[in-house]
Amino acid sequence: MDDPFIIGGREYSSRLIMGTGGAANLAVLERALVASGTELTTVAMRRVDSDGGTGVLQTLRRLGIDPLPNTAGCRTAAEAVLTAQLAREALGTNWIKIEVVADDRTLLPDPVELLDTVRRLVADGFTALAYTNDDPVLALRLEEAGAAAVMPLGSPIGTGLGIRNPHNIELIVARASVPVVLDAGIGTASDAALAMELGCDAVMLATAVTRASDPEKMAAAMRNAVTAGRLARSAGRIPQRFWAQASSPPR
Amino acid sequence: MDDPFIIGGREYSSRLIMGTGGAANLAVLERALVASGTELTTVAMRRVDSDGGTGVLQTLRRLGIDPLPNTAGCRTAAEAVLTAQLAREALGTNWIKIEVVADDRTLLPDPVELLDTVRRLVADGFTALAYTNDDPVLALRLEEAGAAAVMPLGSPIGTGLGIRNPHNIELIVARASVPVVLDAGIGTASDAALAMELGCDAVMLATAVTRASDPEKMAAAMRNAVTAGRLARSAGRIPQRFWAQASSPPR
Amino acid sequence: MDDPFIIGGREYSSRLIMGTGGAANLAVLERALVASGTELTTVAMRRVDSDGGTGVLQTLRRLGIDPLPNTAGCRTAAEAVLTAQLAREALGTNWIKIEVVADDRTLLPDPVELLDTVRRLVADGFTALAYTNDDPVLALRLEEAGAAAVMPLGSPIGTGLGIRNPHNIELIVARASVPVVLDAGIGTASDAALAMELGCDAVMLATAVTRASDPEKMAAAMRNAVTAGRLARSAGRIPQRFWAQASSPPR
Amino acid sequence: MDDPFIIGGREYSSRLIMGTGGAANLAVLERALVASGTELTTVAMRRVDSDGGTGVLQTLRRLGIDPLPNTAGCRTAAEAVLTAQLAREALGTNWIKIEVVADDRTLLPDPVELLDTVRRLVADGFTALAYTNDDPVLALRLEEAGAAAVMPLGSPIGTGLGIRNPHNIELIVARASVPVVLDAGIGTASDAALAMELGCDAVMLATAVTRASDPEKMAAAMRNAVTAGRLARSAGRIPQRFWAQASSPPR
Repeated sequence: MDDPFIIGGREYSSRLIMGTGGAANLAVLERALVASGTELTTVAMRRVDSDGGTGVLQTLRRLGIDPLPNTAGCRTAAEAVLTAQLAREALGTNWIKIEVVADDRTLLPDPVELLDTVRRLVADGFTALAYTNDDPVLALRLEEAGAAAVMPLGSPIGTGLGIRNPHNIELIVARASVPVVLDAGIGTASDAALAMELGCDAVMLATAVTRASDPEKMAAAMRNAVTAGRLARSAGRIPQRFWAQASSPPR
Repeated sequence: MDDPFIIGGREYSSRLIMGTGGAANLAVLERALVASGTELTTVAMRRVDSDGGTGVLQTLRRLGIDPLPNTAGCRTAAEAVLTAQLAREALGTNWIKIEVVADDRTLLPDPVELLDTVRRLVADGFTALAYTNDDPVLALRLEEAGAAAVMPLGSPIGTGLGIRNPHNIELIVARASVPVVLDAGIGTASDAALAMELGCDAVMLATAVTRASDPEKMAAAMRNAVTAGRLARSAGRIPQRFWAQASSPPR
Repeated sequence: MDDPFIIGGREYSSRLIMGTGGAANLAVLERALVASGTELTTVAMRRVDSDGGTGVLQTLRRLGIDPLPNTAGCRTAAEAVLTAQLAREALGTNWIKIEVVADDRTLLPDPVELLDTVRRLVADGFTALAYTNDDPVLALRLEEAGAAAVMPLGSPIGTGLGIRNPHNIELIVARASVPVVLDAGIGTASDAALAMELGCDAVMLATAVTRASDPEKMAAAMRNAVTAGRLARSAGRIPQRFWAQASSPPR
Repeated sequence: MDDPFIIGGREYSSRLIMGTGGAANLAVLERALVASGTELTTVAMRRVDSDGGTGVLQTLRRLGIDPLPNTAGCRTAAEAVLTAQLAREALGTNWIKIEVVADDRTLLPDPVELLDTVRRLVADGFTALAYTNDDPVLALRLEEAGAAAVMPLGSPIGTGLGIRNPHNIELIVARASVPVVLDAGIGTASDAALAMELGCDAVMLATAVTRASDPEKMAAAMRNAVTAGRLARSAGRIPQRFWAQASSPPR
């Protein structure tokens, strides 16, 4: 596999992690997942025992996509730890994407509860992927606590505001020893490309695809964008200049 | 052909127009052209009679890429008209990309000479593609003068500053009846994706690829980025919000 | 006078040029003008013979503010030249701010008609201040044609979008030999400060003040902002850095 | 006093808090302080017993500026608490600006140590002003812990990158019940104006002034900029529009 995405000891060829929330129905979701090329997709554990949730798991199994349970809806470390343990039993995986949000209006992570959750789940043998704000210090703390990946936001969940602070993402990337996955805030394809150009290892998104007018088409857009950004990052872009420079020297 | 790019009465499947300037050598250029998937590539007429120029034309012919002669290096309408006529004779095409720049430091188009050139070449039967600044008024004037496409810059040639004024590009797109091709200033893949998301019909670039550390890889990045942006534009992105919105409603 | 603003051979201490359009009534306008500290204020000639227009001129005279007639509403050089000549007769000044816009939706200048107007009015002895787009080439052409000042927009009139393309403003400033006045698009105080930091010699605005909820207060804001930006430009700002730097070295 | 800045039960007329670090010498610092109009200025306690530190305190006393001791250089809550207690004894004030940074390269706050410090110092009777990152959740947590003000950064200390994430500052302002002071990252006057326009109650800065080419002039620029931004915020700016709008309706 050329340029594999290695996370938690696994290898993926796709660098696009999808979420399942927000889709109109399972058929729409399935077409979007296929078009995205994703190999790893989050499932909200607090929805799994509902019909929708179970259907999602079956769909992922049929498509050969690894499910990544998350703790969406948890507000405290205690809730998140319990949810992760239930997920491990229900899905037979010790992978968990940790979301511990502080409130409904921002859905931003609570830094203290998040760090506590990571510590406890790592101690309990989990492969913990931590959804975090874009604070470069917290990202390091999460890594030190054993997170298998840090997943900084571009902007709050569902806002579609893209990457509000590229400088912070660059600071996180510059010092991370684990994969950095841009998570939350992606609104359109150029946002995803930019995330990869800033040095992220992967992009995670949900509603940018599931709530687009044409989810399948937007999924294909994101797939291409992530590939584009990854290639551009390693291709070595031209520097930015104040004055122009002709492509051909004058004769 | 799905979603063809129609310009000057021709149909292309690729929406990436390449330039040939800036490449280290013909072998590098060829690999980049192939990786880009381009079907239309500019050639500077004032370089064609040099060895490099001739070689470029042979390469394009072998690859089945349409050559698009340009008037790079011209400062006046008189020079540009003459260059276009020489190009028509030499290459057997009445297509011409018009560049009439005002000075070497900015390489920005001279609006008056440009408009004059378009009028004269259209009257002489040319299919005139006009490289222009991002002024929405000039773009309309060029179209009224018969330009087959308007090619506004994102930023000055070779600067890699991307699209400095997305608002102007949106204004141009909102009123254009001919294809709009974002030309000049592209630095990396997300710039190209953004151009398409703003509604441009195609992207033109040269040194972003030819002067990248790995031109072939950057060409592939740009190919994916243009596809991504085009898909995203038509997929209908989610709106931007100030407050967050959960992907799954709380149970 | 410390750091005078010299334009067209006159000296002003204020670097804020106001417009009179958009005010709810003359009393509001007068308070705003006073709060702004302006010494030069545009008057739309096509409104002067209406009651509002005459009242404005009397107000300016009483306040000791120089009137600057403009050609707002003109679409062609012929109209603008005629309007300027009427203004000269009516107001006894050969100063004219030239506005020749292309259409109502963008109110953007028509570059060809604008340049033609400048040439004709300069030949006729006018001190011509040219409202222009932010094209660095057109700015130079206007200067070569004899414009006493170039007045590039930050964004289209009345949009409040601020300075959409700081790079273009910097390019204009870098090469101008006449005063550069940022005109149009200003929405709030930081926009005006930025204009001065980019090197503009003055700022011109109207509806950002006259249509603010509290015009008098916004006028005071703009006055402070222009002063702030002017001082900051000449004070020599610190460079931008990627990594942090402590203000005090560690002991 | 018109529009006083109330913080920790005190009233100030200036909304510009200065820092003393980075000045070439005491004479330069004094002129800058005077030009800034500041009434509250931070002093690094870890420098106070050195000659420079003592001189700074005497200067502030002479100028009638309140000293605000800070814990710059501290890495842990324990260090910060001890430093605050030493400051209280040495300066006879229970006001403290809390800085607990995680590392030298970013000088970013450590969120966990910072929150712990605030809790401990509030319990010990301090008026605690918390220098924080721009995380809206942490800002609320600090307020809940009893901070008298939250002081989010615009960008890392000394970078001059301005306000990298205006959206976060707006989110903090929208939910804060204590004063919000934009602290760190300011590079030039328009940055300070923008901070106030976003709704901050005050601006804190040091090296943007002390390391400018002309500190006194930059201090005056910042004073005007803070005033400008404050006025503009309350004056009610015009909305942003996509299309233009004439200031005078056509006759």
